Amino acid sequence: MRSLLLLLALASSVQAQSPATAMRDQGLRELRAFDLLRDLTRLGHRLSGSAGAERAVEWGAQTMRELGFENVRLQPCRVPHWVRGEVATLTLGDDPLSICALGGSIGTPPEGLEAEVVEVKSVDEAAKLGSKAKGKIVFFNGPMDPTLTNTFAAYGGAVGQRVNGAATAAKLGAVGVLVRSMTLRADDVPHTGTMRYEEGGRKIPAAALSLNAADKLSATLRRGPARVRLTLDCENLPPVPSSNVIGEITGSDLPDEIVLMGGHLDSWDLGVGAHDDGAGCVQSIEALRLIRSVIGRPKRTVRVVLFMDEEQTGAGADAYAFYAKISPEKHVAAIESDAGGFTPRAFGTSETVERARRYEAWLPDLRPLGITEINGGGGGGADVAPLGPLGAVLFGLRPDSQRYFDVHHSRNDTLDWVNARELEMGAIGMAILAWRLAGE
Amino acid sequence: MRSLLLLLALASSVQAQSPATAMRDQGLRELRAFDLLRDLTRLGHRLSGSAGAERAVEWGAQTMRELGFENVRLQPCRVPHWVRGEVATLTLGDDPLSICALGGSIGTPPEGLEAEVVEVKSVDEAAKLGSKAKGKIVFFNGPMDPTLTNTFAAYGGAVGQRVNGAATAAKLGAVGVLVRSMTLRADDVPHTGTMRYEEGGRKIPAAALSLNAADKLSATLRRGPARVRLTLDCENLPPVPSSNVIGEITGSDLPDEIVLMGGHLDSWDLGVGAHDDGAGCVQSIEALRLIRSVIGRPKRTVRVVLFMDEEQTGAGADAYAFYAKISPEKHVAAIESDAGGFTPRAFGTSETVERARRYEAWLPDLRPLGITEINGGGGGGADVAPLGPLGAVLFGLRPDSQRYFDVHHSRNDTLDWVNARELEMGAIGMAILAWRLAGE
Repeated sequence: MRSLLLLLALASSVQAQSPATAMRDQGLRELRAFDLLRDLTRLGHRLSGSAGAERAVEWGAQTMRELGFENVRLQPCRVPHWVRGEVATLTLGDDPLSICALGGSIGTPPEGLEAEVVEVKSVDEAAKLGSKAKGKIVFFNGPMDPTLTNTFAAYGGAVGQRVNGAATAAKLGAVGVLVRSMTLRADDVPHTGTMRYEEGGRKIPAAALSLNAADKLSATLRRGPARVRLTLDCENLPPVPSSNVIGEITGSDLPDEIVLMGGHLDSWDLGVGAHDDGAGCVQSIEALRLIRSVIGRPKRTVRVVLFMDEEQTGAGADAYAFYAKISPEKHVAAIESDAGGFTPRAFGTSETVERARRYEAWLPDLRPLGITEINGGGGGGADVAPLGPLGAVLFGLRPDSQRYFDVHHSRNDTLDWVNARELEMGAIGMAILAWRLAGE
Repeated sequence: MRSLLLLLALASSVQAQSPATAMRDQGLRELRAFDLLRDLTRLGHRLSGSAGAERAVEWGAQTMRELGFENVRLQPCRVPHWVRGEVATLTLGDDPLSICALGGSIGTPPEGLEAEVVEVKSVDEAAKLGSKAKGKIVFFNGPMDPTLTNTFAAYGGAVGQRVNGAATAAKLGAVGVLVRSMTLRADDVPHTGTMRYEEGGRKIPAAALSLNAADKLSATLRRGPARVRLTLDCENLPPVPSSNVIGEITGSDLPDEIVLMGGHLDSWDLGVGAHDDGAGCVQSIEALRLIRSVIGRPKRTVRVVLFMDEEQTGAGADAYAFYAKISPEKHVAAIESDAGGFTPRAFGTSETVERARRYEAWLPDLRPLGITEINGGGGGGADVAPLGPLGAVLFGLRPDSQRYFDVHHSRNDTLDWVNARELEMGAIGMAILAWRLAGE
């Protein structure tokens, strides 16, 4: 009789507050993700190979230990060591235009390089320049399409210029490239990001212009030929060792089955990577903190991985994937947050739309957070992608995307652009999804 | 044959780009709502009775005329004229605490008033203080519930303290009230808003504390009794004349059937009312601009109303409702935007959930904007509410609500907290909804 009463009491308390509700309430009361992000961003930027990145590695491990995560460890990898230097100037006649070096670019001679500018709107258009590019600076001015309300689609349609523009222009004999910043915000803030030279090919300097600067240069070119002087003192140093940071709560029933949550710990160096991807790191940690606090020990192991060097070579993702392949563990699912700490709206998954319907039963717990879909057709991101072929279902947190490219890879990517509740709501969504995937 | 070819050509061009797509593309390319908001917020704050409010009336009429709207006119109303003054200080011992006067409050004597503080968490709790409130300053410190993800619900649960706290405390013989700011953001920014004295009752000064100040005062009170000194030099001046601003595109088939869009033109005076409710004003104007540009003349008349004095007495809403009652026109529908210029997520309606299903056919045009529901159970807002009993279906734009109370009624409510694309997406949603309601 006493045990029946106890069961009834338990049942009524469970009915009063489900685990998902308990995680939501605790998260929104405490807003710990924002506290973590404040701590992380105080360490400075976290460019791969920088002192800030190594401070962040230490911070990640110490934070996970303090929160009681288990098996906290570093996983070594080897990362590029590009340094921005002090000088990034572009002058059009006497007018300075706001620019920044693209990540991975070589510098110019100390006195800069002066050349005539030829404008194109895409890599394809540049490739057709032929001999007209020789000795010139090629200006890639294709805008992100403002009519796409998914700004990641607009980014995807334009970013090829930044990544591959220099390699294409170098083959044609160009002496440098300028790229319109990958943003939809017309201002004076340039946005950096990675670019790649062809293996063994010529290397030419590459810089991004703010939208105002790009529009001004383009207007000048419409009136006739124009020359600019570009000066950059960035350089590539030899690769250095770095690490992923890993911690977990071991599963009670199926400890060798892993549900992974992660973001990337490195950032670009113009801001402090608050949204990209400090947000994903602290959301992953906060989600596991909530699971530990409310659920205790889930059936499967829930693991947090803070990946190093997503921005340049994916060295951390490669190191983890190598480990996952040889490990006896089975990676059941992996949730990545790398789209900013904005108000959450959905999870993407690597499942087909039809197979993703199985997750609809979990939506009632997620809808109060504004997460209305777990839709198939693409999930995860660069860091967890290699786990897909190993059998993991991949998920990606999909926050509202309108503000992301205002801050992405720019000096704007700082804590004051982050709303503590929006950040937390993403973390809570990840906690609920991971808890469900881990066998409740 | 030629006309058949023409028809086929027309059909194929319509298929290529529907009116909704055309409005979306034009809106997102031009982002004119933000330009309008920049112009409006440059006029200063728009407190009812202020010079800024009258400049905004002129601006509204001139803007609508320049955009080719028809029958642009002012509609007179009489508004309160409260002025904040220069002084709002609260000292706890030697420590200043950040406060602002509540709108409508009387001032203190010039030397301030000093009294012991008694803390409560709600109006109900204050009413039970009885004689314990006599001679005291009653401190209403009930927080907005952080666990509610609809922040308007959290506001609704707490704002009674601000509106009715002074009237309740005055009846018990209190000498003043302090109210925890209606926000979820822990910082030093106080948030104003309207408060009401009882008709013919005692009037006592009322101020809002920032969350940091409220928490500090509360911590002090937990250690023992505390006295504070409150000084305010705000005052109520006699009412003054002001106006709503109205413009429209007359319907081609049913010109006497009105689809109304609106926001309120007045604002609080600490910021410049960028989100509250400059956003709703410029979205309404921009929506009609898009309808005019893409559709031309809809079947029903689509009207924009910029309401005066929503924040204090609703004088503009009353004036419009009086007109609507005696007018031979029929108000078919009214769409209000007064929840901030943030990324849109839904429309609320005054229909029942069941009757709201009829609008689901319009969702495919709205989903690309992130508007996933036209759900029943409450629509519109204070300004259009009186049109409901006259037969209008009421709609309210429901943007993401996490950031609204960071800026609401505070010095933070400025243009730099507005994202041009989020603002525009709300305007486009209103344009599509109004176009459908107006008979396409």
